[in-house]
Amino acid sequence: MIIPPSRDTVLCISLAGRPGTFGVRFHNHLYQQLGLDYYYKAMTTQDLPAAVAGIRALGVRGCGVSMPYKEACMALVDEVDPSAAAIESVNTLVNTAGHLKAYNTDYLAVRQLLAQHQLDPATGFALRGSGGMAKAVASALRDAGFAEGTIVARNEQAGRQLADVCGYRWLPELGDLCPPMLINVTPIGMAGGPEAQQLAFAETAIAAAEWVFDVVAMPERTPLIQAAQALGKPLITGLEVIALQALEQFVLYTGVRPSDAQVAAAVAYARDI
Amino acid sequence: MIIPPSRDTVLCISLAGRPGTFGVRFHNHLYQQLGLDYYYKAMTTQDLPAAVAGIRALGVRGCGVSMPYKEACMALVDEVDPSAAAIESVNTLVNTAGHLKAYNTDYLAVRQLLAQHQLDPATGFALRGSGGMAKAVASALRDAGFAEGTIVARNEQAGRQLADVCGYRWLPELGDLCPPMLINVTPIGMAGGPEAQQLAFAETAIAAAEWVFDVVAMPERTPLIQAAQALGKPLITGLEVIALQALEQFVLYTGVRPSDAQVAAAVAYARDI
Repeated sequence: MIIPPSRDTVLCISLAGRPGTFGVRFHNHLYQQLGLDYYYKAMTTQDLPAAVAGIRALGVRGCGVSMPYKEACMALVDEVDPSAAAIESVNTLVNTAGHLKAYNTDYLAVRQLLAQHQLDPATGFALRGSGGMAKAVASALRDAGFAEGTIVARNEQAGRQLADVCGYRWLPELGDLCPPMLINVTPIGMAGGPEAQQLAFAETAIAAAEWVFDVVAMPERTPLIQAAQALGKPLITGLEVIALQALEQFVLYTGVRPSDAQVAAAVAYARDI
Repeated sequence: MIIPPSRDTVLCISLAGRPGTFGVRFHNHLYQQLGLDYYYKAMTTQDLPAAVAGIRALGVRGCGVSMPYKEACMALVDEVDPSAAAIESVNTLVNTAGHLKAYNTDYLAVRQLLAQHQLDPATGFALRGSGGMAKAVASALRDAGFAEGTIVARNEQAGRQLADVCGYRWLPELGDLCPPMLINVTPIGMAGGPEAQQLAFAETAIAAAEWVFDVVAMPERTPLIQAAQALGKPLITGLEVIALQALEQFVLYTGVRPSDAQVAAAVAYARDI
């Protein structure tokens, strides 16, 4: 059911340095499928404080927050959910009558995926990356009880800091280590990037792994995912993360939880470009 | 052609103390008819400076401005078009790469209607009202060369001030005067208002008039318009004003001027609620 724009249509937006297409297609498709009088618009800004103040003043209901605004948003809101406070990084704002609350649904999505896939917290892992998303994934692992972890990052300062905060160890390179779970949280393998054709981990490590988790969502089948799939390894893909975090945003904005089939259809629509 | 929401959809909004339905239906209908990747959303705010700063920071392309924001907007923009400067009242903001320019398309619409209906500037008139819209109409009359005018307003201060600025005279009541053109710019006759059933001018004045102009658009056939129509008087209706001012906003936001038939269809759609 397509609801024509009305006086009462609820507006949700996203703020990103480089606005993407996934959110705008995912959310608007679900609004239409569920007959919700909502509209979602992707945006960017050169002035984050004025943009966030504008969200409050204009009654925008929700806002997805992407790079490079995830940390700077923290100081501009009225309340921070534990999902964002734990990692000092925001990817979602919810505006309730002018009161802005910040969440991190990346963190929530990874927590859910670890549980859905029934990963044993005793599984040791290597997580490659040290940026904002790496922080969300490492924190989710820590809070899910994963005790044995290695943060692999060439950036020593960021890598060490993330490892220290979460109680893991830091290494600049994985070397010959072959941990049971490999997790990529770098842009390696991302379509359009300089490392689109590269493997985030060595083939020997992939062959030895029990689980492979790649946060890169575009393409769904990164070189790492392809290699692990060829070897029959259980996987968690970036598409699962992006879909689940978008779903949690959707629930926060609308109060409505779509069915699994509706979410799957929205993800398929959002990727069909 | 309905364009699905995209990353590049251009957002236009309106700000009103009590958001209406005309603009959201008029603009969105024309966007669809013309295949423009635009979306229009009616909004309100409790914090006008933050809302206008948000329009700039979020890259909202255009904003219709209604009561009670029309005067306060002036100080928040980067440039004021003569249409707004002349009456110190704004009903339209256009955002070009962060540069906000203010217009008054009510003024522009009335100027156009006086010309379209080929009214002789020698026609004397009585204009009832002294608010922001009365200022737009009186200024348009003055700038079109109408020299003989009476501002009729119970509010002496506002009435006198408007009359003085435009070079007309002020009267608290029309009394027995029967000017050739009667213009209502008060809420008298407005649907849902306390004076919905009342005539803005006495029946004798209507009978003697050569032209009747009612700015009230809802309903289109106010008691004043009905009475004048029954007597076969030439008319200018509030629907003409609201449609033409919305059309001028549309052209400012999109750079596209729809055909008369497209505008008529959009007006019919916007009123069909």
